[in-house]
Amino acid sequence: MMSDTFAVPYYAVIFTSLRTSQDAENYEQAAQRMLERVREQPGFLGVESARGGDGFGITVSYWSSEAAILAWREHPEHREIRELGRSTWYRHCTTRVSKVERNYRYST
Amino acid sequence: MMSDTFAVPYYAVIFTSLRTSQDAENYEQAAQRMLERVREQPGFLGVESARGGDGFGITVSYWSSEAAILAWREHPEHREIRELGRSTWYRHCTTRVSKVERNYRYST
Repeated sequence: MMSDTFAVPYYAVIFTSLRTSQDAENYEQAAQRMLERVREQPGFLGVESARGGDGFGITVSYWSSEAAILAWREHPEHREIRELGRSTWYRHCTTRVSKVERNYRYST
Repeated sequence: MMSDTFAVPYYAVIFTSLRTSQDAENYEQAAQRMLERVREQPGFLGVESARGGDGFGITVSYWSSEAAILAWREHPEHREIRELGRSTWYRHCTTRVSKVERNYRYST
């Protein structure tokens, strides 16, 4: 899934993770539910995600403000799923919060 | 491939692309060569990349300064490969330059 670009500045949360091989069905369901929830959040702009056959994935979500990112971080359902991610689904995960200052798009 | 985190602030270049199905062998070779070149650049910190079976991929490279990003953008071999990417390998691609202000890491 490829997102639009947005008027700068905006925020990007870069989430990288290495999946364990455990619990694939629950993982897929939870990922789908989180995608539905995140789209409902105030200040959410878009999300992009890719995971290779080696289990390494990158998800980038885009936000209009840092306050919106913090509110999503504290969302009860998101907190619960995040704990399951750390305990069961991910071997490692990293979150980086960044401010997008320039963007370029190219389409054929 | 999963990168380390770095002391903030630093810069992240988020490159998203949708592959055409064309010219897979040359694409792989060029991607490998770019990976070798980028690691030689002053100010380069790390890179992470994932592409799913649908052809959508995200590559995030990390840099110590904006000047380092601009120097890599002007690198002759990188310019040449970027043109081939746009003309042959990618249906769409987007580049976002962002400043990382916070990062968290979690490992089991």
